[in-house]
Amino acid sequence: MSAIRVLFLGDVVGEPGRKAVIQQIPILKQEEGIDFVIVNGENSAGGRGITPKISIDLLRAGAAVVTTGDHVWDQQEIVSYFPTEPRLLRPINYPEGTPGNGSVILETSKGRVAVIQVQGRSFMQPPLENPFLAAEEEIERLRADGVRVIVLEIHAETTSEKIAMGRMVDGKVSLVVGTHTHVQTGDERIFPGGTGYLTDAGMCGPDESILGRSIESVVWRFKTAMPTRFPVAKGAVRLCGVIADIDVETGNCLEIRRLSLLLSNEDVAE
Amino acid sequence: MSAIRVLFLGDVVGEPGRKAVIQQIPILKQEEGIDFVIVNGENSAGGRGITPKISIDLLRAGAAVVTTGDHVWDQQEIVSYFPTEPRLLRPINYPEGTPGNGSVILETSKGRVAVIQVQGRSFMQPPLENPFLAAEEEIERLRADGVRVIVLEIHAETTSEKIAMGRMVDGKVSLVVGTHTHVQTGDERIFPGGTGYLTDAGMCGPDESILGRSIESVVWRFKTAMPTRFPVAKGAVRLCGVIADIDVETGNCLEIRRLSLLLSNEDVAE
Amino acid sequence: MSAIRVLFLGDVVGEPGRKAVIQQIPILKQEEGIDFVIVNGENSAGGRGITPKISIDLLRAGAAVVTTGDHVWDQQEIVSYFPTEPRLLRPINYPEGTPGNGSVILETSKGRVAVIQVQGRSFMQPPLENPFLAAEEEIERLRADGVRVIVLEIHAETTSEKIAMGRMVDGKVSLVVGTHTHVQTGDERIFPGGTGYLTDAGMCGPDESILGRSIESVVWRFKTAMPTRFPVAKGAVRLCGVIADIDVETGNCLEIRRLSLLLSNEDVAE
Amino acid sequence: MSAIRVLFLGDVVGEPGRKAVIQQIPILKQEEGIDFVIVNGENSAGGRGITPKISIDLLRAGAAVVTTGDHVWDQQEIVSYFPTEPRLLRPINYPEGTPGNGSVILETSKGRVAVIQVQGRSFMQPPLENPFLAAEEEIERLRADGVRVIVLEIHAETTSEKIAMGRMVDGKVSLVVGTHTHVQTGDERIFPGGTGYLTDAGMCGPDESILGRSIESVVWRFKTAMPTRFPVAKGAVRLCGVIADIDVETGNCLEIRRLSLLLSNEDVAE
Ligand SMILES: [Fe+2]
Ligand SMILES: [Fe+2]
Ligand SMILES: [Fe+2]
Ligand SMILES: [Fe+2]
Ligand SMILES: [Fe+2]
Ligand SMILES: [Fe+2]
Ligand SMILES: [Fe+2]
Ligand SMILES: [Fe+2]
Repeated sequence: MSAIRVLFLGDVVGEPGRKAVIQQIPILKQEEGIDFVIVNGENSAGGRGITPKISIDLLRAGAAVVTTGDHVWDQQEIVSYFPTEPRLLRPINYPEGTPGNGSVILETSKGRVAVIQVQGRSFMQPPLENPFLAAEEEIERLRADGVRVIVLEIHAETTSEKIAMGRMVDGKVSLVVGTHTHVQTGDERIFPGGTGYLTDAGMCGPDESILGRSIESVVWRFKTAMPTRFPVAKGAVRLCGVIADIDVETGNCLEIRRLSLLLSNEDVAE
Repeated sequence: MSAIRVLFLGDVVGEPGRKAVIQQIPILKQEEGIDFVIVNGENSAGGRGITPKISIDLLRAGAAVVTTGDHVWDQQEIVSYFPTEPRLLRPINYPEGTPGNGSVILETSKGRVAVIQVQGRSFMQPPLENPFLAAEEEIERLRADGVRVIVLEIHAETTSEKIAMGRMVDGKVSLVVGTHTHVQTGDERIFPGGTGYLTDAGMCGPDESILGRSIESVVWRFKTAMPTRFPVAKGAVRLCGVIADIDVETGNCLEIRRLSLLLSNEDVAE
Repeated sequence: MSAIRVLFLGDVVGEPGRKAVIQQIPILKQEEGIDFVIVNGENSAGGRGITPKISIDLLRAGAAVVTTGDHVWDQQEIVSYFPTEPRLLRPINYPEGTPGNGSVILETSKGRVAVIQVQGRSFMQPPLENPFLAAEEEIERLRADGVRVIVLEIHAETTSEKIAMGRMVDGKVSLVVGTHTHVQTGDERIFPGGTGYLTDAGMCGPDESILGRSIESVVWRFKTAMPTRFPVAKGAVRLCGVIADIDVETGNCLEIRRLSLLLSNEDVAE
Repeated sequence: MSAIRVLFLGDVVGEPGRKAVIQQIPILKQEEGIDFVIVNGENSAGGRGITPKISIDLLRAGAAVVTTGDHVWDQQEIVSYFPTEPRLLRPINYPEGTPGNGSVILETSKGRVAVIQVQGRSFMQPPLENPFLAAEEEIERLRADGVRVIVLEIHAETTSEKIAMGRMVDGKVSLVVGTHTHVQTGDERIFPGGTGYLTDAGMCGPDESILGRSIESVVWRFKTAMPTRFPVAKGAVRLCGVIADIDVETGNCLEIRRLSLLLSNEDVAE
């Protein structure tokens, strides 16, 4: 039985987050024996969106696929970049004709790996098409094509929508990872049908922060209801994600464990 | 230095959840050396609200305080019961004149312990008064009264509102625990000021479920957008919560660890 | 040039609303020379949903089409009734496979008339598929089929979504009427392309009320944030709607005027 | 019996809206015999917020009071301007300590007139304190002070919250006018207790538009879910508002009528 080891890194926040991720991907690949890396980059450009340059940097650093989310279009230049880079994903449940794709199949030395990103609708903007129907359709298409190692990212706010997605596709995909809340959940498990699952991967960004942003700014906002800027916080970065071993024949998840790595500032310095 | 050990159990769901909690509280108290137990009971009555009888059962089983949340009024008989039981809390940020209280001080053999519950406003219904101002005011009142061991529960949807609450009161309360999402987060820590923190305690309810409810019903709802009932799921129950050691002199959190206990069906049988 | 006169009556609330509507439809048809009546019945059953019996009563009274909205499934028995009655509509932007239809073509003495209902997504539950794409597709289908007299109902909360819908289809349908807020707007007009438009038709229900419900109950809810029942109000009923003259050849709206008719209690008595 | 005639103009949108309002206020005062003018200026600066200069211009043109809403802080310079201009209002239900005020009493030749602005919470951001309790408290304060002519603006999304506000204060204030949806409603009336009421005043801005913004941009947004700018539309401006005659002794509304005035481009040219 041959297995492929997948690392999924949660929402990368700002310069501190992306510096740390770019530096750590090669180290993690080697130390942990990672075969395939997926990174959510929706907050990698100053906390809002992603630029073509950052996408290139993440891919060069060793990410196989970069995903996004509700912040996908925050940097305007990314819109025209999407058609040029199939390894950059936006949620699949946008209407037909939207720039970019929501899924990709990549050849690896251990066979084909597919990644799908879908966005939830509970308390999420903008309203998109039904993520459950979109995911089901795309998974059927991939499986009919013979792909067995399938990672599905559900970018969503509520636990109910994320767990429902994971349960619906149990036995049909290898791994379901949630993103968007920036807080790692502790519920990693393998569902009865063989699908690995974690409600939220957490974030890659400053640890002394609120979702990667300066603590004072966010607290002040909640206390006063006044508008404010939310600068990306400073200080030590925590990398959060999940590592899953997947059987390349069956596509079943064999093992899933969380990664939560606090890097000292020296770790990330040049 | 004397410490008090607090156990906080997350949202108890339905009969399976409350049976397990009632049976396990005495065992956990003894095995873990727990001094003080807080239980969120907002879903203990068939998943919706809490009845006077269930509140009494939880208190008799050894809970010192029972809290609620956005489902507090789901069972109509609880409204008139509130004024008779100060150990049953509803969110403190309801308008003046609302039945019940949002905080309580209890005498224990290790000194006074206060519990406050506050409800968030991001994506929460109904809209309540500013939870940050309400929490700050109540904490000041308690501290002016000399209370040092203070547990604050933030019942809220978003991670940003929960973390902001925890960060705002860092150094002023002993422990901040989030509830409502029914999924335990993995971010337990002690903030720089000495406050223990966990974004969500998770739930006490059926493990093979979506937030305690039947998997099929919730998946069907998301796929079809059709109304449905969400029966409480069956099968083995998982108890989720947090255990914190608190310095009774300073009120600082000395240690915080998560509890996630999967009980076999035999564990809960009579 | 031959014209057809259409009457659209807004959300019928409870027994008072439906009694008044059933009694007034024949009178209005005669007095106003109405050819075709559409009634929104989503609140006709005690304020929540519609039953098969009420649907039959409204059709027998002279409605050609009965529409619904976000309350469509509130009465469970309506689900299985839908496939039996093509003149009862639910929003068209539900997923494929949903019981019922979102549009209908009827033969009249003045030619074919189509009615489409679509539901908005801004602040509306449940989340449905893109109403703009769904409306555009259905209108194309109808026009390709040669239908020219097309009434489109947009059941939505926000003015922006309703006006955007009306503007998008200007020149392609005869009349766009909004529903759901229960308050008639004063912005009736004919758009440059020939489409008649009104943001909200208003409601058919008790005039001394809040959206047809008892004033005290709704005010109390907003003041206290406590749960309450919202009984349908009593007293004189106001019928709100819109009357449009449509050119049967071009499908253009020739004239549009609002109807807001306060009935004394005697008007509705037997 | 002496009466005062009040004109309330709804949300002024961008340069077209404010040019038209500034030019028309003196004309309307004279032609309609208006004693007191209130203007909602929350969208007067390019559609987003208001600047000190625009506030001054509106007051110089003859507005007695300028109100705002959820867009109040969109232009940063307005924050520090608020304490210098009591005739500029922000919603009263912000927390204590917020810059500016939510109500003002002005001396006129016909006696004192008070204006209060309150913001709703249903589907409104940011979450503010209970508008019903805030309004009730302020009205009591004003009435205890002997003020009888009181205009209350409710800036809110839903019809239920606006009507509930109007009904709650019936008999205690002279006039309740809703704003925020930018579409005038047709439900002007005098409630049984003597309070004049209109659910929404409508907007003062370009008529061929969606809430004052370019039609194409808003339609494109709804169809594609892609981000876009929403430029203020061009062309003829419509002024929307309400005119109410108020008994200065009792504070009762004697008459209420809507204003919806389409200005040709020449009307507004210099
Ligand atoms: Fe996100
Ligand atoms: Fe994110
Ligand atoms: Fe809850
Ligand atoms: Fe709960
Ligand atoms: Fe509705
Ligand atoms: Fe309705
Ligand atoms: Fe507004
Ligand atoms: Fe506005």
